[in-house]
Amino acid sequence: MKIAVQEQILDAATRLFAEKGYATVSLQDVAAMSGVEESELTRLFGSVEKLYEAVLELQFSNYAASLGAPFDGSEGPVTKVELFATAMCEFHKQAPYFFPLFYRELLTPSPCFESIILKRIRRVAYMSDNNIAKGIQKGNFRHGVNPANATMVMVGMFHYYFLANCLVGSLLPENTTDEEFFSQAVKVFLNGLRKEE
Amino acid sequence: MKIAVQEQILDAATRLFAEKGYATVSLQDVAAMSGVEESELTRLFGSVEKLYEAVLELQFSNYAASLGAPFDGSEGPVTKVELFATAMCEFHKQAPYFFPLFYRELLTPSPCFESIILKRIRRVAYMSDNNIAKGIQKGNFRHGVNPANATMVMVGMFHYYFLANCLVGSLLPENTTDEEFFSQAVKVFLNGLRKEE
Repeated sequence: MKIAVQEQILDAATRLFAEKGYATVSLQDVAAMSGVEESELTRLFGSVEKLYEAVLELQFSNYAASLGAPFDGSEGPVTKVELFATAMCEFHKQAPYFFPLFYRELLTPSPCFESIILKRIRRVAYMSDNNIAKGIQKGNFRHGVNPANATMVMVGMFHYYFLANCLVGSLLPENTTDEEFFSQAVKVFLNGLRKEE
Repeated sequence: MKIAVQEQILDAATRLFAEKGYATVSLQDVAAMSGVEESELTRLFGSVEKLYEAVLELQFSNYAASLGAPFDGSEGPVTKVELFATAMCEFHKQAPYFFPLFYRELLTPSPCFESIILKRIRRVAYMSDNNIAKGIQKGNFRHGVNPANATMVMVGMFHYYFLANCLVGSLLPENTTDEEFFSQAVKVFLNGLRKEE
């Protein structure tokens, strides 16, 4: 029962922080949206700062777990890139507030930026760098490509797509699905890295 | 003289809106930063809403002019993509507050979102779509690529790079320059679109 109340609070807080930004959300707002008394919120989380920290911690540890998983298996470097793209798409569906929270932190970093966000983002980027380096070594990808740049290009194309979701309707053909976009983006990316015959 | 004062106000306002977000900036803040009296600000711009509109109008019309230019010439589709990347890099240097302003609008759209932002972003995207469609027709790029998806991938990889500038130091090798990143990103992108022999 206590876990259910905590989840209810975290869900409401996640949405509010994502939609309105950390600086403009009060415990009162969270109480109103979650239907939990403000005194109970204070008892469980202490302050709005601590609640925000708990939200980020949950979101970014899920991110690191979901997006790190594709690099853990025994597949080859090319398949791992494809699995990463699928995982990104899945994660976006399952955690729709992650990207707005992340972008708000990039624009106006909170005190948790280094300890919670940078740490997790770095971990996933490091796994992708290693995968691309391995692909170059194995002859799947071209020499001369800097693995860190390649990771940045790959992650960037996905990120912008999510952030620009409100633009997408007017910029992409009407019946393009997320899956279609992702599959084409990965093809362009992989083809771009491919070793020339 | 009057133009100098207006510029002084617009410069200060652009920076404040980009750094703090539209909702938390007052005419008083702009007065303090620009060194222009609040009464003069009100006389020239009316309200903080109107001032914000003037800032966006200036930033996004510059964006459309700078990023549209590469598509106007007589070069081939591949060269135009390279020129676009260079223009993006130049624009970022010359208008460092453009990207934060744009991202803040994507996260929390203001009433100007459709009329000022979407209009200009659409115009540039449309020019890029046409360029890629032409490249497919001419045999520079592969058939089966959706031009709108390709534009999204290209623009996305640049955008994220700028937004993640604060991450870049820790994610890319220490002495990577903007130009190096851009030149590699464009190579990956163009190679990815290239028609298979």
